[in-house]
Amino acid sequence: MRIALDAMGGDYAPKNTIEGAALALKALPEIEKLVLVGNTPTIEAELQRVGCQDSRIEIFHSTEVVDMHESAARAVRQKKDSSVSRSIDLLKNQTVQAMVSAGHTGAVVAASVLKLRTLPGVIRPAVACLIPTENKVFVLIDAGANPDSDAHHMVQFAIMGSIYARYVLSRQNPRVGLMSIGEEDTIGNETTKEAFKLLKRTRLNFYGNIEGFDLFANPVDVVVCDGFTGNVVLKTAEAAALAIFASLKHQLFKNPIRKLGASFAKGAFQTIRRKMNPDTYGGSQLLGVNGICIIAHGASSPLAVKNAIRAAADSIKYELNPQITKEIEAYEESVKEVGARS
Amino acid sequence: MRIALDAMGGDYAPKNTIEGAALALKALPEIEKLVLVGNTPTIEAELQRVGCQDSRIEIFHSTEVVDMHESAARAVRQKKDSSVSRSIDLLKNQTVQAMVSAGHTGAVVAASVLKLRTLPGVIRPAVACLIPTENKVFVLIDAGANPDSDAHHMVQFAIMGSIYARYVLSRQNPRVGLMSIGEEDTIGNETTKEAFKLLKRTRLNFYGNIEGFDLFANPVDVVVCDGFTGNVVLKTAEAAALAIFASLKHQLFKNPIRKLGASFAKGAFQTIRRKMNPDTYGGSQLLGVNGICIIAHGASSPLAVKNAIRAAADSIKYELNPQITKEIEAYEESVKEVGARS
Repeated sequence: MRIALDAMGGDYAPKNTIEGAALALKALPEIEKLVLVGNTPTIEAELQRVGCQDSRIEIFHSTEVVDMHESAARAVRQKKDSSVSRSIDLLKNQTVQAMVSAGHTGAVVAASVLKLRTLPGVIRPAVACLIPTENKVFVLIDAGANPDSDAHHMVQFAIMGSIYARYVLSRQNPRVGLMSIGEEDTIGNETTKEAFKLLKRTRLNFYGNIEGFDLFANPVDVVVCDGFTGNVVLKTAEAAALAIFASLKHQLFKNPIRKLGASFAKGAFQTIRRKMNPDTYGGSQLLGVNGICIIAHGASSPLAVKNAIRAAADSIKYELNPQITKEIEAYEESVKEVGARS
Repeated sequence: MRIALDAMGGDYAPKNTIEGAALALKALPEIEKLVLVGNTPTIEAELQRVGCQDSRIEIFHSTEVVDMHESAARAVRQKKDSSVSRSIDLLKNQTVQAMVSAGHTGAVVAASVLKLRTLPGVIRPAVACLIPTENKVFVLIDAGANPDSDAHHMVQFAIMGSIYARYVLSRQNPRVGLMSIGEEDTIGNETTKEAFKLLKRTRLNFYGNIEGFDLFANPVDVVVCDGFTGNVVLKTAEAAALAIFASLKHQLFKNPIRKLGASFAKGAFQTIRRKMNPDTYGGSQLLGVNGICIIAHGASSPLAVKNAIRAAADSIKYELNPQITKEIEAYEESVKEVGARS
């Protein structure tokens, strides 16, 4: 397997990206080539620092970096030699089979759409993110590629998310829920109410609306929403979890008896942190583009980068894209037929 | 003070509503009259069960109840004798100064708009909800009254939320954040990007966009969003918190050493649960209607009902509505002037 890593992308790049690359190479023998894209001297210095001399590493020199605060579209147009753009180029010319970036999500989306194009029939690509619950994990789609999505887009997200859950999470006939603010089909905003009607007519295993309250009670395998809502859900859930852990820490250190208690119960906290740690999943996949793009959290730790590379390797194995093309085309065909008949 | 309580509204009504009423009467000597609206024999039986014989209680008989699964608009039109509608009637004819309901939020909003009308200049009323963080609390507005809100509505929500934070939370010049998916003004959906521009031109202390990640780090006093997003944020944060507590409980009971540790550290867990318990705030206020309507969680505990009644009593004291009218009218006037000049 051949994978490109945007070595300069992310809040803690290139430190965490290179450390993550080194971890991935140790853990994943199936990697034949890992192309580190970015400034060569910087990358070489980091590799030396972490003592990584793996022969599967190649460096692809690029001179520019997309800043987290830039406009995505402008950055892709103007910074032709950015590490994000070059990583996508390597994917396009088949030097690699997948790319990973913890950089500017908007730039990855824009460059992918521009250079790789969407898969046949796909209107908008969407980010599929894995969210852990106590005993399971579910797919949230779209987690941020399309802040303005319409009902038709959301049905396509549901189809792509369902394929992702089937292959990557091995869920038979995955249950698809629509993120809303009440159970009834008459509750929601105009877009979700329209999406509800469309989803009911698909062949998907549509569960109906789900509310924030239900998210972690595992009623569904796939949660569909527009990219704005998805991104808000993702970040709010993570923030709430972190706030509780922080608060717990403060409270547990308030007196020596509590501290002693906490040390006895240490294993419990560690298990939960590990289970609910988004770093375990590492990367979200941008579904619907003609190539495998894994988007990692801007603040990715080395572990998260490693697991994003693992996610890329998994996706190469699963070959989701032909399946997405097939099912999206079948759906669009069925919609046309209904339109022609009515 | 005279307050009406929709005794039949909520998932655990009339049990929890009546228990909450009894708690409120004990705790709040400023209440002169508490009108319990609903089926008289049922209410009397509950009062007897909890041993409450307070002379400040009045029962207002109503024969219908709005079911949680009904369409709000239809319920308000057809069930003229519902406990929600009758509570609003009592407010309208000034029998009471405020009403509290844990019933169907949509029905409370619809009945308030229909019977009380919005305050002069207010386009849409909005639910202002208090959300606890470790050391503070912030106002989320709109928490669910308007699933489809535009940028202009959101500016009005910001003004109302800011007044609420000033009076109810005693925040001088409250900082107002716009819920979005990135810090930059170019990030968000079409509505939030437009709202950003409008908010920058107001006299509010506008902080800019805030993301889910920042929510619990106390950067702002007021978080503004459309009612769909607000409701999703509210429920997702609560669900994430509950999921972690549930998980913690399971893990802490896994072996005797952890159990012992947990018993030593018990105080820490209790403090956090108390601090982060939404029941402590009990009720959200529907701002922008001509009257004081407090909306409590459908699953309100007796404590939450008590605190919702307390919130109603507080709001009577603060007299927010003249302030809302004044500031909304000043804003609308300033927008007209800019329009006339340009």
